[in-house]
Order: sequence, then C-alpha cells, then structure tokens
Amino acid sequence: MSIRIGIYGYGNLGRGVESAIRQNDDMELVAVFTRRAPETLKIRTEGVKVCHVDDALKMIDDIDVMILCGGSATDLPVQTPELSKYFNVVDSFDTHARIPEHFANVDAEAKKSGKVALISVGWDPGMFSLNRLYASAILPDGKDYTFWGKGVSQGHSDAIRRVEGVLDGKQYTIPVDEALEAVRSGSCPELTTRQKHIRECFVVAEEGADLARIEQEIKSMPNYFADYDTTVHFISAEELKRDHSGIPHGGFVIRSGKTGFDSENTHVIEYSLRLDSNPEFTSSVIVAYARAAYRLNNEGQYGCKTVFDVPPAYLSIKSAEELRKEML
Amino acid sequence: MSIRIGIYGYGNLGRGVESAIRQNDDMELVAVFTRRAPETLKIRTEGVKVCHVDDALKMIDDIDVMILCGGSATDLPVQTPELSKYFNVVDSFDTHARIPEHFANVDAEAKKSGKVALISVGWDPGMFSLNRLYASAILPDGKDYTFWGKGVSQGHSDAIRRVEGVLDGKQYTIPVDEALEAVRSGSCPELTTRQKHIRECFVVAEEGADLARIEQEIKSMPNYFADYDTTVHFISAEELKRDHSGIPHGGFVIRSGKTGFDSENTHVIEYSLRLDSNPEFTSSVIVAYARAAYRLNNEGQYGCKTVFDVPPAYLSIKSAEELRKEML
Repeated sequence: MSIRIGIYGYGNLGRGVESAIRQNDDMELVAVFTRRAPETLKIRTEGVKVCHVDDALKMIDDIDVMILCGGSATDLPVQTPELSKYFNVVDSFDTHARIPEHFANVDAEAKKSGKVALISVGWDPGMFSLNRLYASAILPDGKDYTFWGKGVSQGHSDAIRRVEGVLDGKQYTIPVDEALEAVRSGSCPELTTRQKHIRECFVVAEEGADLARIEQEIKSMPNYFADYDTTVHFISAEELKRDHSGIPHGGFVIRSGKTGFDSENTHVIEYSLRLDSNPEFTSSVIVAYARAAYRLNNEGQYGCKTVFDVPPAYLSIKSAEELRKEML
Repeated sequence: MSIRIGIYGYGNLGRGVESAIRQNDDMELVAVFTRRAPETLKIRTEGVKVCHVDDALKMIDDIDVMILCGGSATDLPVQTPELSKYFNVVDSFDTHARIPEHFANVDAEAKKSGKVALISVGWDPGMFSLNRLYASAILPDGKDYTFWGKGVSQGHSDAIRRVEGVLDGKQYTIPVDEALEAVRSGSCPELTTRQKHIRECFVVAEEGADLARIEQEIKSMPNYFADYDTTVHFISAEELKRDHSGIPHGGFVIRSGKTGFDSENTHVIEYSLRLDSNPEFTSSVIVAYARAAYRLNNEGQYGCKTVFDVPPAYLSIKSAEELRKEML
C-alpha cells in the first residue's frame, strides 16, 4: 500500500513536492490544499483532488503524511502546530533562530495527538545540519564552516526590488574561492562575513532612474549588503528573464579537525550541493523524510522530531537488508 | 558518569581509538586487551590496564562498550559475535560482500544477550555508505559514484611486497581527475574500472633485481593491478621511509540526479574526505558510534545495527536541545 501524501500550500515548494512524489513508487499524492479558490488552481497530476485548506480535516483518514509547503515567516509557525493535531506532518521551517520555539510549539501538539511532526527539513536546515553534526561528532577538535551559493537569495532579491527606481532584480550569493581554499587547507582560518561571501546583483531600473543612487543604496543597505563586497549590474528586463530566471543554489559544509596524541594529523570533511532548482531539491529531501515520518509513526513513535532524530534507513524505499547488501 | 570503553586489539586502529577517546570528555578508557603478553605492551594512557584477551570476561561490569580493533579477514568474524554475548560492541568490519553474513551472526548473539552491536563502522563502510544512502533517497532518479584516494591501499601494498625481488613497497590509489569532473558535471557517465582510478607504486627492489620483470609482474597482477593504469617507481629504502611512511587516504561519494516534471533540473551532491591518517579517522568515527551504542542500549535497544540504523543525534556529546539550537 502506498504512503498517501497531502500537499498543504501550492507554490514553488508544493509543485516541487508534487513532482518528487512521482519519483517515489511507494508514494501517492492524494490531495493538494490551497487558500485560493480550489477551482482556480491547476495542478500537474491527474485525478488528484484540489481542496480548500478549510476542508483538510475532512481528509484525516485519507492522508498518511501532510507536507506543509508554506513560508517560515507567518505560515508554518501557525500551520505546523495546528495540523500536527490531526496529521503526521513535515515542514521546512528555516528561521534558524526560532527553531527551538517552533519545536516546542509543535512538540506539544504532536505529543497530544500521537502524530510525528518532522520540522526544518530541507538542505539548510536539513542536510547541511546533518553534515555539521556528523563531522563535529567525528572530529571534536576542529571547526566547521558553512558557505552558501552560488545561488539566488530570495530575501536579498526582494530587498533589491524595494529600492526606489528598481523594477526587478535578482541577487546571487557567491562563496569566496580564497576562503573556501583556506578552509580546505585545514588551517581553521578566522573569516569575517565579508571574507566568506560576495553578493552579485542584477538590476532592472526604471527608465531615467539615477543608477548611481540605486547602486549606492543597494550597497549600503544594512544587514543585507553593507557587510559584503557587492557588485551591481544594470541589465534589461529581457536579459533578466533570459539569463536569471532559474532558482539555482547550493553550498558547502566543511569541517577540518586534528587527531593523534600530539594533534599531528589533519582531516578535512566536505559536503557540497550544486542545485539547479532550490525548491525542487528541498522538496526531494522533504519527500524522503515524509517516508520516515510515516514509518516512525507506524512504529508507535510520536512528537516533534528533526533530521537529527531520524535513523537514515527510514528515508530509503529499500529494506534494511537491501541497504546493508547494496549500500553499506 | 563517563562511558567506559575497552579496546580489543592494539594495532594502528586500537591506538587511534585510544587517542580519539582523549578528545571526548564523556568517555574513559578502562582497559586494552591484547593477545600478546600484556606486560610487553606499552600503551599511551596512564593508569589504564593492559589485559590479556582471555581475561576480557572478568571486566564485564567495568566496560560499557568494547571497541573491536581486529582485522576483517579472520579476527572480527569470530570476535564480534563472541563478544556480543557479553558487551555492547563496535567493529569496523569492512569486507563489503560478507556484511550480510556477519550481520546475521552478530545479530543472533546480540539479540540473545540484549546488547547493541554496531558493525562496519568507519568511513567505507561507514560515512561513505551513509552518504550513498542519503543521496539516493533524496534523488531517486540518479546515479552515485564512489572514488577512493588519494591514499594508501594496504592490500595493494602487501601484494607488491609479495613480488619476488621486492623488499618493500607502497601503493597509492588515485581517482582520475577527468572521471571526477565528468561525474560532477551531472552527465552520469559509464566509467570502467580503468577510467575511475589509477594506481601508483613505490617499490624498493633488492640489489641486482630485474626491475623490468618486477614492473611487469606488478602491472599484470590480476585483480590488483591488471585492470588499472599502473605506474611503478623504483626508489631507495630511505626515500620510501622519508616520503611514504604516512597512511593518508580519502575519497569522494558523488551522486547526481534529476528532478522536475520533465527531469529538467540536475543536482549534484558531493561528500569528500581528505585524511592524513586513515586509521585515526576510522577510529574517530568508531568512538562517536561507541557513544551511540551506549545510549541505544541504555534505552533498551539491542541486536546488531549499522550506521543506517543510528539516529545522528546519538553520535554527539551535545544534548538534543543544544543540537537543535546550535547546529540545525
């Protein structure tokens, strides 16, 4: 019998989940839930219901895992605890600083309902977190570094678009090669924000706008750009569409550490991602963890969990025997 | 209270474990067990007993986890099932093809005794296996590749030393750059054995030996060298000692896969290790899993397990709350 999945929210992430489910033969998409009028929503999978979010509770018996595809700012802090009352859920809550609070809220509900709620699933938080944990447990005497990019930052692109005179814009976060090399050398360098990443902006300006003023305003924007070396390119709307409509991302988690009675040996562990589509990769991680949520709950487990709590074997469609034989 | 560790076998791996324990404040080395006469063995940690392996059972109440540091060919197939009758154990059994059989033997004993036995812990099998599993669960429509090196292969170095006229030798396994790049491009190439790795040998020959014959004999050795592009360098015993006495290793696990309704997006996941000391890194992985074995057994779990079965959080000295706050 298939694992029956519901998608709650149908933006980039929801569409990514819909597409990822097709690659997993033990899963079946049952319904997509939306805040829009359901009849206005066109999804890609034939025979799957589109329902209003208000009707989710009518489907309690039809859905094994509800995948929450809303945003971390306002959607998930409300939706994840609420839906944990009725469903096993997976979310991709990614406001790192608020994870303990989100965990507590979700855990309280999931403990009462007896459901499994997996939060903060994706690649950071998610796969990058796992790699930070594994590497630091293996090499306690060391230091780890996370680099992001090259990739599009949604938040920074939004910030550009709020500057007066800007019609559209895209921002790439790019790790600095020299910093990556210094870290890979095992030298455990101290790196400032500016030394780790650069920011590259592609901006479509209004006709006749003061480009020098726009560039200056972007480069000096606190929190977003002021602490970085930022370059601004003015391009046409056509160029932006042609060359910058993808949502690539990626990054690196690197830990180096010492071993030996005299700390004489150095080791470097590196994990990296190069992603054509940030939301589709995130969705693919979430779908694998939906399988884990289902299995954990079937075994009688419940409460809020993160990637740190899930035995890796639970993610795979293969049996424990197959995994030992083919992958160990 | 510390986790009390016993080391069973004191070669490179046992010494690595001894040294790794010092980096983990929640662990304490209690005893080293050897087949040699205990009084002939000099260990590095003051106040720790050296015992004969025959006396291991006298220490059942003093040891929380016994770390087995013997070889996979003849030691572990006997020792791991036997010691699982009395102790939580961790081994680094690395004969991939015989893992299912080893698992079954160990599981039978550990199920009876109520102990946890973690087998095949290290980096391959071990961390590389984990990365194959995670990456394939996330990107089901893809292909993964494992490359080893640059590093010293003990088995191949031994094979060189068995050639007539050879006094000593060291063999490095080296991944082929072009193959790595082809895999990283996401093109999912079909690669032959010869295309993936080259083998470089440093050989000390007897005086007057027929070097051409030795080189030919090495290069044509079935299983070990015949399927590879192999280079042979003749050097002096002094050069071998000066330039090739380390035991570095490492490698790469790379998976690329497609996502999207039309498989239009490609993603590349890469995990790599660069290790100054193969046994010390392996030991460091083992020690982290010893912590997990202890915790799992304390929770009432038992039986044979592998890295696939262990929730990542169990490896870390930090609490679940700390991990969520600092690493997620």
